[in-house]
Amino acid sequence: MATTIAVLGGTGPEGGGLALRWAHAGHTVIIGSRDPARAQAAAEAINAKIGAERARGAENPVAAAEAEVVALTVPYAAHAATIESVRAACQGKIFIDVTVPLVPGKVTRVALPPGGSASLEAQALLGAEVRVVTAFQNISAEHLQEIGHAVGCDVLVCGDDKAAKAAVIELARDAGMVAFDAGPLANSVVPEGLTSVLIGLNIRHKVKSSGIKITGIAD
Amino acid sequence: MATTIAVLGGTGPEGGGLALRWAHAGHTVIIGSRDPARAQAAAEAINAKIGAERARGAENPVAAAEAEVVALTVPYAAHAATIESVRAACQGKIFIDVTVPLVPGKVTRVALPPGGSASLEAQALLGAEVRVVTAFQNISAEHLQEIGHAVGCDVLVCGDDKAAKAAVIELARDAGMVAFDAGPLANSVVPEGLTSVLIGLNIRHKVKSSGIKITGIAD
Repeated sequence: MATTIAVLGGTGPEGGGLALRWAHAGHTVIIGSRDPARAQAAAEAINAKIGAERARGAENPVAAAEAEVVALTVPYAAHAATIESVRAACQGKIFIDVTVPLVPGKVTRVALPPGGSASLEAQALLGAEVRVVTAFQNISAEHLQEIGHAVGCDVLVCGDDKAAKAAVIELARDAGMVAFDAGPLANSVVPEGLTSVLIGLNIRHKVKSSGIKITGIAD
Repeated sequence: MATTIAVLGGTGPEGGGLALRWAHAGHTVIIGSRDPARAQAAAEAINAKIGAERARGAENPVAAAEAEVVALTVPYAAHAATIESVRAACQGKIFIDVTVPLVPGKVTRVALPPGGSASLEAQALLGAEVRVVTAFQNISAEHLQEIGHAVGCDVLVCGDDKAAKAAVIELARDAGMVAFDAGPLANSVVPEGLTSVLIGLNIRHKVKSSGIKITGIAD
């Protein structure tokens, strides 16, 4: 079912890649940014790539207000401030937190933030009426930029609301990925930390997008 | 190179499986337990399976004292006490912590212990002269029990001593697994937490041993 998805930070490579794939799959995408002109330019680039008018740009709070599902893909340094700016607009909605709490200069070292994980901090900031789900933290932007490129990494989906998780698993499938219910929001430390492990593997093995595949589960 | 490895808690399925595979690969294995008779029985079962006399049993502190490498495979409830009992015997050695900080009754929920992770607690208890490396937390015992069975899960190896990590990666290979340097000991929250994610997947998908494979790195 076509959904209207806001991608806050959608001018960056990760958010832009997700937005591209969701728009390609038939969803309406609103690229959110602090700068609406940059957001609109990113949206137009997506429309040109997919040959359809399914993306538009807006300031983050407007994007969140007009969407049914809100995805956050900003660097951790902008995490809390961006959430504060959209809190009112997100009430009652599914909020997909893609944020990884990387420490600049020490990105290969897992460093959990004071709130336990980025997504637990998001839940605390947004309040209980927002259904926070965490996903896509381990998907290299390299994988997402080209429609049709097979994403060599599965998606771990964490959250405390089962229906919201099921919806995000569907959205991951729409974007060409295999996704798994990885348990409660408390489990999000695993995918959030795993990104540092994968960045370290990329450096040590001189590759661009190492990832994980879940094994032992029949399709 | 053949090594003498103590497997503390080696009477359990996970430690017993690692001990079996290491003995089969030509290493000398000392099964450690609080009960030396149970340890000896487990060692004899391994010798019978591999058709050679490479395993023996001992009390945990004796096993640790006589080994070059010490692996800890006890439930988290016994983690600190077992470490205290072998601290003196482990000085200067490689210490492989396989422990997962599961909370009984809530094993599908990631619950990091007060020290940040089981392995950071181990390092704090053992002191700076012990080279703590963490590995094998995600390997289902099901995979290990049968020699020759392909282990469908890669091993994430964390530690602050590169040579010690390289030695553990070799030991993982000897036991028939693919292992990766997953960064500093601080990163051990990922494999420790991942076990809860995998147990949840096992339950939801009605399988016994889901796992992960690292993708995007050429062999």
